Amino acid sequence: MRRALELAQRGMGHVSPNPMVGAVIVKDGRIIGEGWHEHIGGLHAERNAFKHCTEDCTGATIYVTLEPCCHWGRTPPCTDAILEHKIARVVVGCLDPNPLVAGKGLEILRGAGIECDSGVLEDECHAINEVFFHYITTKKPYVVMKYAMTLDGHIAAYTGDSKWITGETARAQVQQTRKWLSSIMVGIGTVLADDPMLNCRIEPGVDPIRLVCDSTLRIPLDSQLVRTAKDIPTWVFCANADVRRKTALEDAGVKVIPLPDESGTHVDLAAAMDYLGQEQVDSVLLEGGGTLNGEALRLGLVDRVQAYIAPKLIGGATARGPVEGPGIARMADALTLDDLTITRLDDDILIEGRIRKD
Amino acid sequence: MRRALELAQRGMGHVSPNPMVGAVIVKDGRIIGEGWHEHIGGLHAERNAFKHCTEDCTGATIYVTLEPCCHWGRTPPCTDAILEHKIARVVVGCLDPNPLVAGKGLEILRGAGIECDSGVLEDECHAINEVFFHYITTKKPYVVMKYAMTLDGHIAAYTGDSKWITGETARAQVQQTRKWLSSIMVGIGTVLADDPMLNCRIEPGVDPIRLVCDSTLRIPLDSQLVRTAKDIPTWVFCANADVRRKTALEDAGVKVIPLPDESGTHVDLAAAMDYLGQEQVDSVLLEGGGTLNGEALRLGLVDRVQAYIAPKLIGGATARGPVEGPGIARMADALTLDDLTITRLDDDILIEGRIRKD
Repeated sequence: MRRALELAQRGMGHVSPNPMVGAVIVKDGRIIGEGWHEHIGGLHAERNAFKHCTEDCTGATIYVTLEPCCHWGRTPPCTDAILEHKIARVVVGCLDPNPLVAGKGLEILRGAGIECDSGVLEDECHAINEVFFHYITTKKPYVVMKYAMTLDGHIAAYTGDSKWITGETARAQVQQTRKWLSSIMVGIGTVLADDPMLNCRIEPGVDPIRLVCDSTLRIPLDSQLVRTAKDIPTWVFCANADVRRKTALEDAGVKVIPLPDESGTHVDLAAAMDYLGQEQVDSVLLEGGGTLNGEALRLGLVDRVQAYIAPKLIGGATARGPVEGPGIARMADALTLDDLTITRLDDDILIEGRIRKD
Repeated sequence: MRRALELAQRGMGHVSPNPMVGAVIVKDGRIIGEGWHEHIGGLHAERNAFKHCTEDCTGATIYVTLEPCCHWGRTPPCTDAILEHKIARVVVGCLDPNPLVAGKGLEILRGAGIECDSGVLEDECHAINEVFFHYITTKKPYVVMKYAMTLDGHIAAYTGDSKWITGETARAQVQQTRKWLSSIMVGIGTVLADDPMLNCRIEPGVDPIRLVCDSTLRIPLDSQLVRTAKDIPTWVFCANADVRRKTALEDAGVKVIPLPDESGTHVDLAAAMDYLGQEQVDSVLLEGGGTLNGEALRLGLVDRVQAYIAPKLIGGATARGPVEGPGIARMADALTLDDLTITRLDDDILIEGRIRKD
């Protein structure tokens, strides 16, 4: 199962909104086939493992990180493939929460007389597909809020200078997250201040969809985002779209999505997340400034927080913090993180956790 | 030497501005005497170990965390005691940086034919007396800036509510620090907002001296600090002391120290630290708000930072941060922490380090 988990993660950045899945076929104590879900629309892990099998797998055991599917999607059910190949035993990491599967896959196999076990390395198998499990059950994107701040809680100096807060190792880790998640969201303030690319610099072809919250369409036509919008999907949420401006952006390859809130002056962030869910965007890396982050938290849209902390002090009563907006009135009502992990990244520290939802 | 280190730390809170020192006398592989520097003015560790010796120590080895003194202070030189007791070998943790000793202790012993080794568990022996080493060489107090903040960098909600940011384990750890350091400093804002006691709640008799920076003597006569000033030393630094107010505070047992800066309107914090050094206050726990912390950092007065971080998000553009003041303009010029340690305290995290001084 450890091997299957390793294989599964090779799909990262290529299978969204599908889960990452790995499969290993074992006969007489030897691995005779391996596979993983390689890219969206391609074969599932089980079928890839059968395809790469080096000998007849009658009577073999298949280890698979996620319960085999039993429904027709882009490909036929994997349960069929397991039956066809006369597998004797199926060992599963975790059940598939997809309501179309949800235990039915194993039921079918057991009904056909195949020995089935599940729950092997369950936590790890679950963890690699946190995004999928969230998306398949809520139809809303899994939102990871990421920020880098000094040890005194600032994301920039009072002048706005923020290059760089964290070191190379931490910044490389962020690239991994950009590969993991299928979109990345910033506010227009970040675009105007930093003119970022927001791509994934560690692997070609796995760039997240770039999302900008830009109420009045201030994004410059000569910004890096707009100039590369024909190569990397770039979507701009706005409240009030000037038609000429909208057309110019669309001509440059930008998708402009007007989603005003009740006031008509700001983007309705909750509606934007619903929209993304409908468009099969299963996850968002929120790299906002304090205002956007504050709004996303206020609306309960954030699932996970990654706080990169540099062992530095910059001070400044007016220096910006990672979460602003109106804020919560009482400390006792603060949002709390669960399943906290702390990782040293050279000089920097990554503190990560899930937002507790009551 | 490990045992000697343990013994040394029993002096914490009782020996300032002296160092904590432990000594163990070993003969024929058995411990025959132990001692530590118990309280200021009392016997040094070596003499306590001799006093508690259970047999003749001729030819024995003495392990002592700090180089034995060779000068007359409140007590006679320990080198004399070692010679009198016919010790054969002296093993020292680290040398005494006190210019009156600084290697001369071991020189005298070696001159008398005693075998001497030093540098055993040197880092640990040095670490327990970081305060002493700083104070003896600079004559200024060792300043530890401590704050508790949410993971999004706030020390209170926008309403000012800050009870509680961290949990019990973290707060208990702060009490240890109050025992370790000989004074505790806050700004008048903290006194007016929280009316704190600022005592050490884990052991009677080791309360730090309570220091308040209060430019215009706004501290209320009925505050907890003033009401208990006859029991626990309470010093107020001010810029501009109204005579009647000053007299009233002094009658209540408060020491009022006018130390205006050039403008005449604020306390000169650097002068306050110099004053504390002259008054044998070897260390300050700075529990300021953002303004006082920012000023202390700006003036280069802080030696160590203890940041307690709770895994909570409170948000708020106007919620206060741990370090404010004008701040530093460029991220590249931020103050940096060295020798970083990260400690989990139940749900909370303590990040601690020394401020790098160029």
